[in-house]
Amino acid sequence: MSGAPRLPPAARAIRQGDRRALARAITAVENDDPAAAPVMRALFPLTGRVPLVGLTGPLGVGKSSLLSALIGLLRERGQRVAAIAVDPSSPFSGGSVLGDRIRLERRPDDDGVFFRSMASRGESGGVAASTREVARLLEAAGFDIIFVETVGSGQVDVAIREIATTSVVVLVPHLGDEVQTLKAGLFEIADVFDVNKSDLPGAELAARDLTELATLGTPRGGWRPRIVRTSTTTPSGIPELWEAVLAHEQFLDSSGARQRGERARLAAEISGRLSSRVGREVRRRLELDAELRELLDRVVAREVDPASAADRLYRDRFRVK
Amino acid sequence: MSGAPRLPPAARAIRQGDRRALARAITAVENDDPAAAPVMRALFPLTGRVPLVGLTGPLGVGKSSLLSALIGLLRERGQRVAAIAVDPSSPFSGGSVLGDRIRLERRPDDDGVFFRSMASRGESGGVAASTREVARLLEAAGFDIIFVETVGSGQVDVAIREIATTSVVVLVPHLGDEVQTLKAGLFEIADVFDVNKSDLPGAELAARDLTELATLGTPRGGWRPRIVRTSTTTPSGIPELWEAVLAHEQFLDSSGARQRGERARLAAEISGRLSSRVGREVRRRLELDAELRELLDRVVAREVDPASAADRLYRDRFRVK
Repeated sequence: MSGAPRLPPAARAIRQGDRRALARAITAVENDDPAAAPVMRALFPLTGRVPLVGLTGPLGVGKSSLLSALIGLLRERGQRVAAIAVDPSSPFSGGSVLGDRIRLERRPDDDGVFFRSMASRGESGGVAASTREVARLLEAAGFDIIFVETVGSGQVDVAIREIATTSVVVLVPHLGDEVQTLKAGLFEIADVFDVNKSDLPGAELAARDLTELATLGTPRGGWRPRIVRTSTTTPSGIPELWEAVLAHEQFLDSSGARQRGERARLAAEISGRLSSRVGREVRRRLELDAELRELLDRVVAREVDPASAADRLYRDRFRVK
Repeated sequence: MSGAPRLPPAARAIRQGDRRALARAITAVENDDPAAAPVMRALFPLTGRVPLVGLTGPLGVGKSSLLSALIGLLRERGQRVAAIAVDPSSPFSGGSVLGDRIRLERRPDDDGVFFRSMASRGESGGVAASTREVARLLEAAGFDIIFVETVGSGQVDVAIREIATTSVVVLVPHLGDEVQTLKAGLFEIADVFDVNKSDLPGAELAARDLTELATLGTPRGGWRPRIVRTSTTTPSGIPELWEAVLAHEQFLDSSGARQRGERARLAAEISGRLSSRVGREVRRRLELDAELRELLDRVVAREVDPASAADRLYRDRFRVK
């Protein structure tokens, strides 16, 4: 906490474990409130050290129960755990219900757990950006491990996998056919595969199929996905699942992949912020600036197509210095 | 077809009803293949005149059966109909299965129907952009009505509603609670609400609730959402649903809303294209340009936060002329 004395009051309160300050900052991030910027700026140097574990997978595979079980295990081990449930299905959601379920399972007096459900109406890129900032707030608030669970929408899953340090894809035994269609992209989507509901028939076969695929494929950046089997009813396999996550986190450190990954993520974050800002500026000017308005008029009249108009603007008005 | 003689061969083939040329162009659009650009440019002046009807709603409300029924009705009336199923859940999808179902239901010799399933791995904005281009290809190929059905992911639903001329939200009777949570945003999400499976108990109540909400709210741009009830098993209500869509399309013309909407959509398309391009360019330069690389190094070292880095780049390297 070397920089602590220079922190603005809201950032200092978050550092000191003030839950209301944390919740307020998260809400500010979610609402794109400019008040969040100085807090994020002050806390950024204190972040980037803890595992950010993504849990994705189809609807109905039991991600929430699995998350509860993992949180239970980690609390027993004295770790402070935060979980963000990203609910992309709003306004048709079941996400806040999932959130409530996890909230109910934890002891209300346990301040080593924090749960937040994020419903987002924007683009998938926007959800990921907010989630990343909320994860930074949680890390600054002293949580040791941060989970991000998604409700199972492809776009958001991909976006979340891009911000996670370890990505767990949860499947169930009877998803055999889907696993076949995953073959091609198998190694791009997960560091750990979990066959959940492994008390159901076919679990062993599913795990063996996945293992075979993992053995045949070229490891991504030197990492071969681990395959584990869990059941939250028995329960079984939860420590093994966590061990697989930790193995990947250790691989990130020993291989240098963590640094490379973090650099790529930060580069994507900077370019994403810049391109959103340029987009907003262009939209504003398309109505206010006479030359741009005239160009839009010509597109509306279908004399110029949108791609050519964008090319022209890029060349004449927005060329990168 | 005034511009026809000047069309490039691929565009001319699409105009003349060549299905293979159409399929190739769609694939090129999906793959971001630069070969698509001249075709899209040539066909753009021929587009923007037909209804683009979005069908969105939660999973399991029967959107695919409804789409089949609508296509059946419109074919009886001699209309040429194309449908795009946007499957955002890839790689965990059920979308291509939906696609196959609809394909099977149409007569294989009917060239007045075209169906295409689009699985997208990119951002929701990217899916919407591709869908809009595919819709233009379909219009240029002579289809009179274009449907876009989504599998029920919030992000993509919103994106599709933004490109549709008429947006139909499909619900079922037992979604009463969800309708309550929709209240606030009710008028932003649909031009037509359809209570499908209206043979189930509660349909009348659900429709009445929606009607009441629609009556109480302020109409969006002068349009008060229509509420209809359908069943694809009976079947019933399909002509009434289509009538509600047409009523909205007529409203768009008589009120001037079509022109305003198209202008806003084209402005968003231009700014979206420009901001993606800027984003790609910045990502490239963050590794190649010494000054930008140094800035990224400082962000990686956590001396500068990503928001400040993006602000600096915007100020110093992108000042808009």
